[in-house]
Amino acid sequence: MITGKNLIGNELSTKDGTVFTTFDPQLNKENAWEFTEASLKEIHASVELAEKASREYALIDGTKKARFLREIATQIENLGDELIAIYCKESGLPEGRAKGERGRTCFQLQTFADLVAEGSWVNATIDTALPERLPVPKPDLRKMLVPIGPIAVFGASNFPLAYSTAGGDTASALAAGCPVIVKSHPMHAATGELVAHAIAKAAELTGMPNGVFSNLNSKGIEVGQELVKHPGVKGVGFTGSVKGGRALLDLAGQRPEPIPVFAEMGSVNPVIFLPEALKQRGDFWAKTYAGSITLGTGQFCTNPGLLFGLAGDVLSAFANKLSEEISAIQPGCMLHPNIKRNYDSNTSTMLSQSGIEVVAKSQNAVPANYAQHTLVMVQGKDFLSNPRLHQEVFGPFSMVVACKNIDELEAIITNLEGQLTGAIIAENSEIKEYGNLIEILKNRVGRLIYNGAPTGVEVCPAMQHGGPYPASTDSRFGAVGIHAIQRWVRPVSYQNWPEDLLPEALNDSNPLKISRLVNGSLTNKPL
Amino acid sequence: MITGKNLIGNELSTKDGTVFTTFDPQLNKENAWEFTEASLKEIHASVELAEKASREYALIDGTKKARFLREIATQIENLGDELIAIYCKESGLPEGRAKGERGRTCFQLQTFADLVAEGSWVNATIDTALPERLPVPKPDLRKMLVPIGPIAVFGASNFPLAYSTAGGDTASALAAGCPVIVKSHPMHAATGELVAHAIAKAAELTGMPNGVFSNLNSKGIEVGQELVKHPGVKGVGFTGSVKGGRALLDLAGQRPEPIPVFAEMGSVNPVIFLPEALKQRGDFWAKTYAGSITLGTGQFCTNPGLLFGLAGDVLSAFANKLSEEISAIQPGCMLHPNIKRNYDSNTSTMLSQSGIEVVAKSQNAVPANYAQHTLVMVQGKDFLSNPRLHQEVFGPFSMVVACKNIDELEAIITNLEGQLTGAIIAENSEIKEYGNLIEILKNRVGRLIYNGAPTGVEVCPAMQHGGPYPASTDSRFGAVGIHAIQRWVRPVSYQNWPEDLLPEALNDSNPLKISRLVNGSLTNKPL
Repeated sequence: MITGKNLIGNELSTKDGTVFTTFDPQLNKENAWEFTEASLKEIHASVELAEKASREYALIDGTKKARFLREIATQIENLGDELIAIYCKESGLPEGRAKGERGRTCFQLQTFADLVAEGSWVNATIDTALPERLPVPKPDLRKMLVPIGPIAVFGASNFPLAYSTAGGDTASALAAGCPVIVKSHPMHAATGELVAHAIAKAAELTGMPNGVFSNLNSKGIEVGQELVKHPGVKGVGFTGSVKGGRALLDLAGQRPEPIPVFAEMGSVNPVIFLPEALKQRGDFWAKTYAGSITLGTGQFCTNPGLLFGLAGDVLSAFANKLSEEISAIQPGCMLHPNIKRNYDSNTSTMLSQSGIEVVAKSQNAVPANYAQHTLVMVQGKDFLSNPRLHQEVFGPFSMVVACKNIDELEAIITNLEGQLTGAIIAENSEIKEYGNLIEILKNRVGRLIYNGAPTGVEVCPAMQHGGPYPASTDSRFGAVGIHAIQRWVRPVSYQNWPEDLLPEALNDSNPLKISRLVNGSLTNKPL
Repeated sequence: MITGKNLIGNELSTKDGTVFTTFDPQLNKENAWEFTEASLKEIHASVELAEKASREYALIDGTKKARFLREIATQIENLGDELIAIYCKESGLPEGRAKGERGRTCFQLQTFADLVAEGSWVNATIDTALPERLPVPKPDLRKMLVPIGPIAVFGASNFPLAYSTAGGDTASALAAGCPVIVKSHPMHAATGELVAHAIAKAAELTGMPNGVFSNLNSKGIEVGQELVKHPGVKGVGFTGSVKGGRALLDLAGQRPEPIPVFAEMGSVNPVIFLPEALKQRGDFWAKTYAGSITLGTGQFCTNPGLLFGLAGDVLSAFANKLSEEISAIQPGCMLHPNIKRNYDSNTSTMLSQSGIEVVAKSQNAVPANYAQHTLVMVQGKDFLSNPRLHQEVFGPFSMVVACKNIDELEAIITNLEGQLTGAIIAENSEIKEYGNLIEILKNRVGRLIYNGAPTGVEVCPAMQHGGPYPASTDSRFGAVGIHAIQRWVRPVSYQNWPEDLLPEALNDSNPLKISRLVNGSLTNKPL
C-alpha cells in the first residue's frame, strides 16, 4: 500500500506539507496516490538520525553489511508484481524493462554485498616500523578506507529502480558504511516508496541502526537544496540534467565545509563511422543504430545523439538507410508529459538551426506522450560553428554530421564537451590509420566502444560510467560497478597504533584474509 | 646562476613584468636577485605548451617516465651546495634541514619512479566477454587510469623543496602523465628557479616533450588565479593557508568546466593526554612535545597546537614542565618577516581572548624574525564557547586545554574542524576505556597517532597526509606517498576494443607483468 508519507529512519512521517501526485503517461492521467512534500523539520530529522546512525554503522563489519544489502535485494524481489505494475504506471515503460531493471538493481546490491563480504576494497596498506633507522626511526603506519558519513542520493527520472532509491548510488554508499537519505524522484514517488520500505524492512531484519536510510518526497527543488546544505550531509550522488547537477555542485561548493558531488549528467555519446565500415556494412550499422537510438524511447544517458562520418554518397546512403530503419520502429511512450514537452521543444530548436536538414521525422499522429523519432543531418562546418548543435536532446533524436575531411572531424571531436561514451565503427583494415582521432576521442570520454552501440551499460568492475565534465562532475569516478564505492570513503592512517585497538583489516594476523599492500607488496598473508 | 626569468617549457622568458625580490630572514635583508612576475601572455603560453605536451606525454610509457623522474632527482643533487646555500638564504632554515628536505624530495621522486616503472598503479581491470550470455551478450571491457591533463602546482612556504617546485604534487602529477605548471612561491623564488632548471634539464636529457614543465614567478595572486581559470588546466595542487586554498577551490568551482583542487591547508593537530600517561610519564611527554612544538620554529603543518587533558594537578604539573622545557629551547628564525608578523599578531589575538592564561612566553629580546615560543592554557568551557581558540597560530605556539571531564573533552573534539592528525598519549592500561573518544577523534582527522608526536611525516604508502576540511579540500586524497598519484587520473574503459589497439596495460598477454583485476580476481598472469 502506498502511504505517500516520508520515511525518516523506521518511522513514517507527515508534517503539513503540500501534496503532489505522479503521472501515468500511457493512460495520460494522474495516478491516485498523494505524496506529502518533506518539511524542513523532516529533512533535519532525517539527517540528524543519519548522523547518529553513521557512527554505529561505520563500525559494522563487512559480513553484516553484506547481509543487509542482500536482504534489500530479497525485500525488493518480495514486492513482486505490485512493484512492476506501479513502476509501469509511473514511467510508461513496458513490463519487460521494469523486470530487467529490477534484476539489475538486485544484481548491483549483490555485487556490493560480495565486495564488502570479501573486504579487500578498503585498500589496507601497511608499512611496518624500522625502530633502528637513522637519523630517525620509521614508525609503524597502517592505512585503510573509512566511510565519510551520511550521503544524499538524488534518483534518476529514467531509471526508477537501478539509479534511484536502491540504485547504484545507494548501494555503493551503504556498502561503504555511509547512511543514505534519498530525495525521491517526483515522477516515480510510489515506486520509490515501495523500494524505500523494502530497504527499511531489510535494515530492521538485519539489525542495522535506525537512520541508516531515509526517503523524502519532494516535487520542488527546496528539499534537495536543504539536504545538500545540511552540515551533517557529507556527500551527494545525483543522476539527471546538467542544470540540476551543476546547481547541486555549486551549492555544495559554497558550504562552509564543501562536500563532494558525484553527478552523472548529460552526454550526447558521439559515434564515428569510418568510411570502409559504412561501405562494407552500412545496412547492418543502420539497423543496429536505429535500435540504439530508439531504445527505451531514446531515454538512456548513453543514447547515441551524434553520428559522424565523412561527407559523400556512402554517408548519405547510410543516413537514408538509418532513416528507413528508424521510421519502421514504432514510436514509444516517454516517461512524463514534461519530458515529452522538452523533447518537442528541444527538437524544434534543433530543427530551426542553420544548416539542419531533416532526414526522418514522421508526421503521423501518435498517442499523447509518445515521441516521434527524429533524425537530422548537418555539415561539419555548421556543426563546428554552432555549439547549440552539440547539446543533448533527451529522447529518440540523433544527428548525422557530415565532415568534409578527417581534419574537420578531429577539430569537431576536440571541441566536444565531455561525454560518457565515444564509439568507433570501423573495419579492422582501416582502423590503424585513425590513431590520432582515437586519442582525441579518448580525451573526451569515459568509455570507448569499438563496433558496438553505447546503450547497454554492463555492470562489472571494468565498466566506466562517467566522463569529463559535463558527462559527470568528477571524471575520476563512476556510478556503475564496484569502484563506485570509492566515492564515499577516505583513508585514515594509524601510526604506532596498539595491535588490539586496530580495525581487523589492519591486524597483524589478517583475520579477514584480505589482500593488503604490506611494505610495498600485495599479499593476503599475515605479517 | 639565478636569472629571475620565467621558464616556459625549454625557454627562459621575460616580458615587461614587475620585479620582486626574496628575503633573507637571518640577515634581515633582501636578497639581491630580481624575479620578473609572469605576464598574462607567459601564463597562457605555458598552458598552451602544456596542453600540446600533454597529448604526447600521456602516451609515454612507465619506464621512460621513471627515467625522467630519476633524472630530476639526479639534477637536483647535481645542484650541490649552491641549492643548499640559496635555500637557507630564502628561508632562514638551517643547512641540516635543507639537506634533509633535499633528500626527501629526491626520495619522493624515486618512489614515484619505482611506482610507474612497476606499472600496476593504473588499476588495470579486465572483464572478458560472454558472447553466449542471455538475454544479451556480455561485452569485453577493460579499464585503466589515464592522466587528466595539465596540472597547476602551488608550492608551500614552509617546504621550499619537498612541497614546492619538484615536491610531492609535481612528482605525483608527472608520474601520472600530467604536465605541470608551477606557480613558484615568492618567498623562495631562487630555490624554485634552480629546481625548475633541474627539471627542465632532466626533461631534455630524457626526451620529454617541450612543455611538460613550466615555472612561473609571481608575488601577487593574479598569476595563480589566471592559471586556475585557464580552460587548459585540469587540476590544481596547493599547500598553504586555508584562505588561499579556499580561494582557489572557489575559483576552480566557478569555471564552466569545474576542476579538482587538492589543497592541503590548516591543521591544529589536537593531542589528547590521558590521565595515567601524564601521571606515569608526564616529564617524558613534556620533553617530547616541547621538541615537537618548537621543531622548525613551529612551522610544520603537523605542529601540535592543541593539547587536551583533564583539569587537575597532574595536568597543571605537565603544563609547567612543558613550559620549562619549551623555555629551555632557543628561539628560532621564522621563514619571512611577514610570517613572523602574522605569528605575533595571531599570538596577541589569542592572548586577548577571555580565559587565556600564559604558561610560557619569554620576554627576552630575540633577533629580528625570531619567534618567542608561547604556551597558553584555557579551561574546556571557554575553549568550547570560543571558536577563535580553535584556529591555527602558525609558529611555535601551543594551547593546553583543561577539560573538566571526559564528556566535555568529547564535546570539544566533536566540534573541532577537520585536522591532518590527532594524537593520543596513553598508558596501555587505560586506553581501552576511551574507545568512544578515539572514534570521535578518528572522525576529525586523517592520521591517528599513538604515543608519539604528529611532526615527522613519513613518506610511505600507508601515510595519510590530508584530512577532513579544512585540513584539506578533499579528505579522500593526500599529498604524501604513492597514493597521491590518484588525484591526477581518471578511468577509461575500452569496450570490445581490438587487442592490437589496446594499451599494453590491458593486453591479453600482460606484457608489463602488472597486477590486474581479471574477472574479479587479482592476478599478474596473462589472460
